[in-house]
Amino acid sequence: MRTVVTGAAGFIGSHLTDRLLAEGHHVTGFDNLSTGRLEFLAEAFRNPNFCLIEGDLLDLPTLTAAVSGADIVFHLAANADVRFGTKHPGRDLEQNTCGTWSVLEAMRATGVRRIVFASTGSVYGEPQIFPTPEDAPFPVQTSLYGASKVAAEGLISAYCEGFGMEAIIFRFVSILGERYTHGHVFDFYKQLREHPDWLRILGNGRQRKSYLYVQDCVSAILLAVEKVREKTNIFNLGTDDFCEVNQSVEWICSHLGVSPRLEYSGGERGWVGDSPFILLDCSRIRSLGWKPQLSIREGIERTVDYLRMNPWALTRE
Amino acid sequence: MRTVVTGAAGFIGSHLTDRLLAEGHHVTGFDNLSTGRLEFLAEAFRNPNFCLIEGDLLDLPTLTAAVSGADIVFHLAANADVRFGTKHPGRDLEQNTCGTWSVLEAMRATGVRRIVFASTGSVYGEPQIFPTPEDAPFPVQTSLYGASKVAAEGLISAYCEGFGMEAIIFRFVSILGERYTHGHVFDFYKQLREHPDWLRILGNGRQRKSYLYVQDCVSAILLAVEKVREKTNIFNLGTDDFCEVNQSVEWICSHLGVSPRLEYSGGERGWVGDSPFILLDCSRIRSLGWKPQLSIREGIERTVDYLRMNPWALTRE
Repeated sequence: MRTVVTGAAGFIGSHLTDRLLAEGHHVTGFDNLSTGRLEFLAEAFRNPNFCLIEGDLLDLPTLTAAVSGADIVFHLAANADVRFGTKHPGRDLEQNTCGTWSVLEAMRATGVRRIVFASTGSVYGEPQIFPTPEDAPFPVQTSLYGASKVAAEGLISAYCEGFGMEAIIFRFVSILGERYTHGHVFDFYKQLREHPDWLRILGNGRQRKSYLYVQDCVSAILLAVEKVREKTNIFNLGTDDFCEVNQSVEWICSHLGVSPRLEYSGGERGWVGDSPFILLDCSRIRSLGWKPQLSIREGIERTVDYLRMNPWALTRE
Repeated sequence: MRTVVTGAAGFIGSHLTDRLLAEGHHVTGFDNLSTGRLEFLAEAFRNPNFCLIEGDLLDLPTLTAAVSGADIVFHLAANADVRFGTKHPGRDLEQNTCGTWSVLEAMRATGVRRIVFASTGSVYGEPQIFPTPEDAPFPVQTSLYGASKVAAEGLISAYCEGFGMEAIIFRFVSILGERYTHGHVFDFYKQLREHPDWLRILGNGRQRKSYLYVQDCVSAILLAVEKVREKTNIFNLGTDDFCEVNQSVEWICSHLGVSPRLEYSGGERGWVGDSPFILLDCSRIRSLGWKPQLSIREGIERTVDYLRMNPWALTRE
């Protein structure tokens, strides 16, 4: 296949790129390198089937040229700083919603029909049903990030209906693993590296979250691309398990051999728009034959190992 | 109250403006006059509590000045040409989604906390449950219009959560009545005026739709503003009844005393993204004590009477 991966220099995008290349596909990466890192593409650059276009999603002519001739676009580029929505209230709209529209327009202009989209379990807001299925009650958005992704999902579905495209939309839990550069494990590790004797935790530590290891995530994406061809396909993607933030802290500390004093910022939520409990019903993607290989604990430990081995990943370029 | 009405020169906006003024409130109308008409504000202009600012939602400085000092913003301005989404695939996103973000930013900048938003039953896509309740299963969008409105709802809810605002979101069925200038009654009347002996109907005529008379719509809005103060309030708004397009044709023809030959474009849907059946569960707004005064048939007949008396409304300026 000739594929385009937006956000190819990002955490999930670079792993997907590597796997697509390993399977013999062509990959055109598209990334503005705002948070992506060229280091993540070191292996890809050695493959003649890979090229990277440095560009922004909102630069429609460049994007259109990039997707031209592709069989499928994996649209992973996004502003993924979930916690900081209220500090930059236009950023999620611009980069995630308008950016997705730009991808769709580029595809329409060039006749590219298939798109895979990285959405998020945050689109469920604060769900009332656990595990939360794809057809949960119409949610009320609680974060600008979730709002921007539900908006992007709507655009994609409407383009599928209006212009004969096909979409696979994944609603991810938090993804963990090698090249992970934001989120709670990253924050905790970074803190413990600076001060192993204490750790500041957002919220009361009782938030319950589901996590998925990045290679399991990529396997699910590739399987769905192979197996489903409906107009709009929506899949939750996570493990069937969850952990409390406090459990995660325990695993990280025990793995690092530290016993810090814990300080909690308090409250049920870590930040405005944080959902105190995330557990997705993943039976739909499992029915295709997928299941995760790593437990949440193993995913967390691999992440810690990666950060320990790659201290450069802790800093922004 | 000091109120701002975006889309004040539009169909629903101008009626709302008149009713707010009649209740003694101040109204600042905001309209780019792209589809709104100054004629609709003739009565409002005679009231010293009214002023109109001609401006576009995307002109944030002008909008910010307009909302400054308001107690509440009624955000009705939108691209409402539901049928033509695929002809202008960026318009709904720009005017409805980004336009709503602009309203929210203007409110945030000036400390205005309450917003009323005109959303649509189209956000349910093609629902599976009838009548469709507000918490129906998470829908898949089928039109760019619906997608743009669900995106706007998400932004509004996220701003309520993130910035302490309060919202009342109405998901309207099609609204009918005086000053109605688009939709099926308008199209049918316009056709029959030009050629009373035949009528072209989009789809197979079997589409079932719910309609609501505009004054009933405005009464519901005003009642909700008086009674509800939750963070995010979502209300379906329609009648508990529906009619087939064919029934509506019969009522219109009998009211006009014509017997045209009927020509159908065919298919279950009138256009891409048309929903073959719309019937909303309005028990939530009814529980506040509201109920519609006019039946669908009466609403349709009033609309026809209005168009007959105001032939200028059939033409764009």
